[in-house]
Amino acid sequence: MASPEIEALTQALARLPGLGPRSARRAVLHLLKKREAALTPLLHALERVNERLTSCSTCGNVDTTDPCAVCADPRRDTRMLCVVEEVADLWALDRSRLFPGRYHVLGGRLSALEGVRPEDLSIDALVSRVAAGGIDEVVLATNATLEGQTTAHYVADRLEALPVRLTQLAHGVPVGGELDYLDEGTLAQALRARRPVA
Amino acid sequence: MASPEIEALTQALARLPGLGPRSARRAVLHLLKKREAALTPLLHALERVNERLTSCSTCGNVDTTDPCAVCADPRRDTRMLCVVEEVADLWALDRSRLFPGRYHVLGGRLSALEGVRPEDLSIDALVSRVAAGGIDEVVLATNATLEGQTTAHYVADRLEALPVRLTQLAHGVPVGGELDYLDEGTLAQALRARRPVA
Repeated sequence: MASPEIEALTQALARLPGLGPRSARRAVLHLLKKREAALTPLLHALERVNERLTSCSTCGNVDTTDPCAVCADPRRDTRMLCVVEEVADLWALDRSRLFPGRYHVLGGRLSALEGVRPEDLSIDALVSRVAAGGIDEVVLATNATLEGQTTAHYVADRLEALPVRLTQLAHGVPVGGELDYLDEGTLAQALRARRPVA
Repeated sequence: MASPEIEALTQALARLPGLGPRSARRAVLHLLKKREAALTPLLHALERVNERLTSCSTCGNVDTTDPCAVCADPRRDTRMLCVVEEVADLWALDRSRLFPGRYHVLGGRLSALEGVRPEDLSIDALVSRVAAGGIDEVVLATNATLEGQTTAHYVADRLEALPVRLTQLAHGVPVGGELDYLDEGTLAQALRARRPVA
């Protein structure tokens, strides 16, 4: 029988992916017992992120700055653009440190079942971005699922008329797999063996 | 390559028990994408707990009030006292809703290896609390580990001269087990079959 404040904290933590009610309780106990070492840093980190959280108006990444840290990085190769479904995929690819260019987050995948249409994704913005020039290669890095590949085909059709080389990740990605769950070795192989869209 | 603020949040979450670097990243992404539904409630819950967090001066529970919600509850049987090692054990027992009395948190267990001596635990406070009268039964609910049982024997010795009935949890508790990991059925059986200290 904890106080309502502690119950509320437990419930907020239990809703995070990877934590259930029991692990959330253990996490709360840890926070309560290690106030200076755990609770305060987490609180301050959340406050700072909450103050500054924004979406990158260039690529759709979430970050505390706009443009995001990736788009603002002067060492990035601006001639290469990697198209991904979700921010999680951008992070997964960027952790591998193998792609030297920038990203474009579609914000999902085409899905007849879920009623996701092309206008629900950031595809027009991608076409404008590529049409504006300065990009030599667009790597289509949607998930290797049916919907991800459908989305890649659709995006490829929309970009076909533009003077860019379209590539996609090699079949190092296991069929049915999602980028965010892959190890970096598999991601590296898939990036190295990327091939032109047929 | 996320911003330093997002990295700091990921690291703060990764230090929670049950979360590693990968699951912390997924949790952060969830928080960033569901700002209103996840980030804000968690932030507010942490703020409220951080503002009010205190330790119960009666039993040693952590809560947002002093006395804590358990000690302040008028429906509790003040004649029964349950002695536990840690706040986690108090919460585990109290979740089972089978113990009608109040608690006393020792704050650990006697351990020659870790250099924990009787004066490092809240044992004097327990003796004073019991000596003050009004308590009929003290249930020794330390863990069924060697150190937990050593602690129970020591506490029993210290309370022996006082006019209370000393009991301990029945051997429903698996040897070597820790209370916070047990299912409520096992806890219920252990409470029902509690027996006098030999």
